[in-house]
Amino acid sequence: MEEEPTRIMLAVNQSTIKGYPHPSISSKRAFEWTLQKIVRSNTSGFKFLFLHVLVPDEDGFDEVDSIFASPDDFKELKKRDNARGLHLLEYFVNRCHEIGVACEAWLKKGDPTEVICLEVKRVLPDFLVVGSRGLGPFKKVFVGTVSEFCAKHAECPVITIKRREDETPDDPVDD
Amino acid sequence: MEEEPTRIMLAVNQSTIKGYPHPSISSKRAFEWTLQKIVRSNTSGFKFLFLHVLVPDEDGFDEVDSIFASPDDFKELKKRDNARGLHLLEYFVNRCHEIGVACEAWLKKGDPTEVICLEVKRVLPDFLVVGSRGLGPFKKVFVGTVSEFCAKHAECPVITIKRREDETPDDPVDD
Repeated sequence: MEEEPTRIMLAVNQSTIKGYPHPSISSKRAFEWTLQKIVRSNTSGFKFLFLHVLVPDEDGFDEVDSIFASPDDFKELKKRDNARGLHLLEYFVNRCHEIGVACEAWLKKGDPTEVICLEVKRVLPDFLVVGSRGLGPFKKVFVGTVSEFCAKHAECPVITIKRREDETPDDPVDD
Repeated sequence: MEEEPTRIMLAVNQSTIKGYPHPSISSKRAFEWTLQKIVRSNTSGFKFLFLHVLVPDEDGFDEVDSIFASPDDFKELKKRDNARGLHLLEYFVNRCHEIGVACEAWLKKGDPTEVICLEVKRVLPDFLVVGSRGLGPFKKVFVGTVSEFCAKHAECPVITIKRREDETPDDPVDD
């Protein structure tokens, strides 16, 4: 009866509190929710496609105290960024492996909203799951929301999963 | 391993082309998509909650040629409206019965956007599925879209399923 598994794309990002390789509260919540409410015990019926978008530091502030003495120093830097992102993906791939659900994971660089929509176009998932901090309209103005943009522009069905209230940090902009 | 089934609320409406009891293209599509991509063979893991909102005819135009001779005529009218809505629900309940998925279905009257959001608050589904005609921004201004309102305001995750292009009628406002 079952042929191809349902391909669920999940856009994941790192914790703003603990940094790489820790997943953000909302990414983790979106993943666990999908397992619990959609995949359930039907582990062979689904495949996760994890995408993490590395955001190039806009102003280079992250590297203000670094010393660059040779071209290799810049290469090292790029490697380090990629490695951080890979460790984040590793978290999700490990969880899938434990549970026995198929998955694929990959990194891209750029503006998350744009890249996620482009990747949807390219890999054609059955649907996209995005986590959301569930910020009110006031906070949204300042921080933007990737989830809202994707829900509007991605060319596949999108399901947005908010964090649970008891998981919201003191500053809700944190994640 | 599995306890409570995942409760999927589906807001359904009638076809604007064929009228009651025929489901709209987008309701039917949202239902079939959910079966195919989410429920799959795991029929015991899910329960559908079908809600149909009867919209009171705003201006009474539907009844312009009717003759009212006694208070009973009005009662008949109300019964007829309800019966039409019930036949629409019957379509979905029959499909679930064939497939072997648990379901519940009920009617409400009022403004669909408001009623759907209120019912989400009351029955607390795990998520809400709404069909959408996938109208462009220009057409949307004139006909409004229930799906967009629900995606923004319903207090549960919402997944919006568009009609397939090959199912779009000549006038895309039709459904």
